[in-house]
Amino acid sequence: MNRIEQLLPEEIEKRSFEIISEELDHMGVILPEDEAMITKRVIHTSADFEYTKTLTFSKDAVAIAKELIVNGADIVTDTNMAFSGINKKALSRFGGEVHCYMADETVAKLAKERGCTRATVSMEMASEIEKPVIFAIGNAPTALIQLYNMMQTKQWKPAFVIGVPVGFVNVEAAKELIMETELPYIVNRGRKGGSNIAAAICNALIYELTRNHQ
Amino acid sequence: MNRIEQLLPEEIEKRSFEIISEELDHMGVILPEDEAMITKRVIHTSADFEYTKTLTFSKDAVAIAKELIVNGADIVTDTNMAFSGINKKALSRFGGEVHCYMADETVAKLAKERGCTRATVSMEMASEIEKPVIFAIGNAPTALIQLYNMMQTKQWKPAFVIGVPVGFVNVEAAKELIMETELPYIVNRGRKGGSNIAAAICNALIYELTRNHQ
Repeated sequence: MNRIEQLLPEEIEKRSFEIISEELDHMGVILPEDEAMITKRVIHTSADFEYTKTLTFSKDAVAIAKELIVNGADIVTDTNMAFSGINKKALSRFGGEVHCYMADETVAKLAKERGCTRATVSMEMASEIEKPVIFAIGNAPTALIQLYNMMQTKQWKPAFVIGVPVGFVNVEAAKELIMETELPYIVNRGRKGGSNIAAAICNALIYELTRNHQ
Repeated sequence: MNRIEQLLPEEIEKRSFEIISEELDHMGVILPEDEAMITKRVIHTSADFEYTKTLTFSKDAVAIAKELIVNGADIVTDTNMAFSGINKKALSRFGGEVHCYMADETVAKLAKERGCTRATVSMEMASEIEKPVIFAIGNAPTALIQLYNMMQTKQWKPAFVIGVPVGFVNVEAAKELIMETELPYIVNRGRKGGSNIAAAICNALIYELTRNHQ
């Protein structure tokens, strides 16, 4: 058992981030200051340094997202796993709530009737929230496509998009669509992403703020 | 929008698995028949083909895990995200339940008193379940270490371990410990893994069985 490092629980996360920072230094990766904590938390949740190459931030994305959260924006996500992973208690300090409509029976029924995904219908439900909404999409490219379509038809506009669906069908194209809009975003180019990545990005933003507000 | 492939929702997963199979063929990767659906679902959930090199199965692991599920084994996981991702309804057809004790107040209290992680205490709680238990560990290496310790002191023995914690501190060593035991396991060697991977492996096993039982 001497290969096991003896650390107190509260030291494990700190040590993990130290290792990530050391390895990034070693790789010669220099991350913009505002983006660093987001990218590092994504690496912490995936052990995948490839995210340093693919995570893409629109201009001032981190500042814009933090401002939204501080002012009580809600977060809508497209999976129950991401819903479960986002720190709802920490977000609630600022007045924000997290929503996921994927398990809603009305959503399932409408999606079946229309031959579209539940994620598509979920985005329409989310557009009825009467405050700014950050979308954290970790699974369904159809969610991003629906957000794009709703913007094109001037129906509605999300406040911010975290676009990190994972997969093989339409995932890359849907991410590129979001990056063509005027929306502020954090997108992971390519196939990778996931509910865990969506939750990690939300939590990185929230933790930055709770640290500043402590 | 012509970069977007028009598919019905039910076709998306099928097409994704076709793409994964095609790319594995192209890479010259031949997976053992029983392991293929597990590995492919892990790639489906991560878009990361590296798992073909690191997912490690003990002898007859897939057959043993399926047998346990068919006979009503429960699943215990170390994160609410994995709990949320595992298809509980499909598992319940065989009489199995999914448990996660991480949010339990008693667990938090005991962990604080003892200066250990909640995952460590959670494993002790799980050992009181009076039927075979499959552990699906996606986050905490301390959960694997505790399972190992409980086995060493002959306190208790898990029926099966899905050992896929992700991270930088003690993760690799904890996985190696499990592989030294006589337990049947599916482990992802190295740093990678996660709640999403743990849930994907459980669901791959469950879906194989529900397909066979339909």
